[in-house]
Amino acid sequence: MGQGVHVQELPGIGKRYDIDLGHGGDRVSVVVRRDGTRDLYVFNSRSDEPAAVIELSEEQSRKVGAVLSGTFFA
Amino acid sequence: MGQGVHVQELPGIGKRYDIDLGHGGDRVSVVVRRDGTRDLYVFNSRSDEPAAVIELSEEQSRKVGAVLSGTFFA
Repeated sequence: MGQGVHVQELPGIGKRYDIDLGHGGDRVSVVVRRDGTRDLYVFNSRSDEPAAVIELSEEQSRKVGAVLSGTFFA
Repeated sequence: MGQGVHVQELPGIGKRYDIDLGHGGDRVSVVVRRDGTRDLYVFNSRSDEPAAVIELSEEQSRKVGAVLSGTFFA
């Protein structure tokens, strides 16, 4: 499961997870801050500039995560 | 857990999940297709045009989901 996910410690902030998606540079990065909030970055192509950035509370992040994991049932 | 997530059947395609994030219109939509692939749409502001769209295989989607849910351990 760890394959394709790069984890980096961000001292004083939290952890950063980079998930390479392989479609011509599509990439998702998630910064999990110590207080539980997450920043979701979506990159298209090899640009260093994210196409979208979104801030998620821990609860919102769990909801999005459940939908993506296929474990969400309304 | 269902609160804040709107689910819609897309006949012949799959299901669409809209997760409202409340920050001035930030929104995430996930289309889960019958074959397991997901399209992740990120919207900033109330625009109908997504800031980013990304296609995820079922496996990639589970990885991103695990990171967001806080259940990913490398």
